[in-house]
Amino acid sequence: MKFGRFEINGKIFYGIVENDHVHELDNSFLYENKKTGVKLNLEQVKILPPVIPNKMLALAKNYSSHLQGESPPRQPEPFFKTTSSLIGHNDKINLPDDSERIDAESELVLVIGKKAKNVQSKDAFEYIFGYTCGNDVSARDWQKGDKSWWRAKSSDTFSPIGPFIVNEINPENLEITGVINGEIVQKCNTSEMIWSIPKTIEFISKYVTLEVGDCIFTGTSGTAGQIKSGDEVIVEIENVGKLINNCS
Amino acid sequence: MKFGRFEINGKIFYGIVENDHVHELDNSFLYENKKTGVKLNLEQVKILPPVIPNKMLALAKNYSSHLQGESPPRQPEPFFKTTSSLIGHNDKINLPDDSERIDAESELVLVIGKKAKNVQSKDAFEYIFGYTCGNDVSARDWQKGDKSWWRAKSSDTFSPIGPFIVNEINPENLEITGVINGEIVQKCNTSEMIWSIPKTIEFISKYVTLEVGDCIFTGTSGTAGQIKSGDEVIVEIENVGKLINNCS
Repeated sequence: MKFGRFEINGKIFYGIVENDHVHELDNSFLYENKKTGVKLNLEQVKILPPVIPNKMLALAKNYSSHLQGESPPRQPEPFFKTTSSLIGHNDKINLPDDSERIDAESELVLVIGKKAKNVQSKDAFEYIFGYTCGNDVSARDWQKGDKSWWRAKSSDTFSPIGPFIVNEINPENLEITGVINGEIVQKCNTSEMIWSIPKTIEFISKYVTLEVGDCIFTGTSGTAGQIKSGDEVIVEIENVGKLINNCS
Repeated sequence: MKFGRFEINGKIFYGIVENDHVHELDNSFLYENKKTGVKLNLEQVKILPPVIPNKMLALAKNYSSHLQGESPPRQPEPFFKTTSSLIGHNDKINLPDDSERIDAESELVLVIGKKAKNVQSKDAFEYIFGYTCGNDVSARDWQKGDKSWWRAKSSDTFSPIGPFIVNEINPENLEITGVINGEIVQKCNTSEMIWSIPKTIEFISKYVTLEVGDCIFTGTSGTAGQIKSGDEVIVEIENVGKLINNCS
């Protein structure tokens, strides 16, 4: 199934997407809910980020092709992306003019459905609600020069996710494609992750409790593509969706 | 004035503290509110973290005495602490048994009162609601060995704040004392900060929007004290309060 968060005439609601329609829900799909009976055309509504997480984490160095010769990490290497950097499908990525190089990183993002602490990898999928597309926008000069990656990875608008969350899929064998201005700049498969999704959840939840709605960006492959003002950037993931954002 | 968040018989409420009493408010003190008329003795209620922020930042290297010979940073050096690590006064700090060295860091924490984006330093104090005590609990081995400081600074229970938030004080000349098991291990004055509070808000808000309730830990001085299971750790700040936590 496919879930989203929407706005129409200033009203925000959650819904289930079927083909080109959305069925309104009376509550977030992350909690107990039912259809209200209202059905809208997707073209009538604004698509919002499908979830407002308490926190977002992302994985560094989780695809061999992104390591540039470095040895693979001995354990998952998460970092935080803050929620004030969240935007949705079709929202603008604002590129700060004092960074010299900003890249788009195409990533599968998982959304937590059940509070997770000390989860074992064999049980990890029970704690996942679903999956969405994410763009881990990254200012490379700040990533190198700053003590932490706070503004490099979490400047306002640096975390596009969406358009929807899907469940009932196998997340471990999905093609990810990154496209800038119509040109394919990244291509990989989630089967190439160094640290699997279950191992990642086991490791993170040993230290940091994952809460309902929290998001984990699972890492990027190869060399990400540089983005500039005016560019259109797409993250497309097989069976998950196509996240489009323009840069300004 | 002095503000807090409390629990009594499972009910959570915000209040204004006067001497040993708390006056219940009908809403968070961060928003429009009024007294309900209910007045409780502080001993009757559980003190909760005074605020639930959307995000927390902390400053690395903001006191010369903590630099250990390194040159002072050319700009503020924030990092994120995640909100799932938040605890309040008298709550237990759980020390993970697979870290070899965990320290307590005594810090002044500021609480944002008004959404802040592109704030100039001369206006910065308008965006601050008040101040509280914070302990930036830090696992030193993970701080050195991991790519980011996610679990080093944000493992569950690693962010005690409280007991209350005070306003109407000058935050730029306050004695901070860190005490472990009755022994003073840290002593400094907020006047020794390398990057002032206004400059810090200007810099952060240029990139990352600060939201109502967000917290900024303003850095620690000298050499922080190691904490072990069974220890009592106190962060005391002149005119702000005394935050006490035990370690397990």
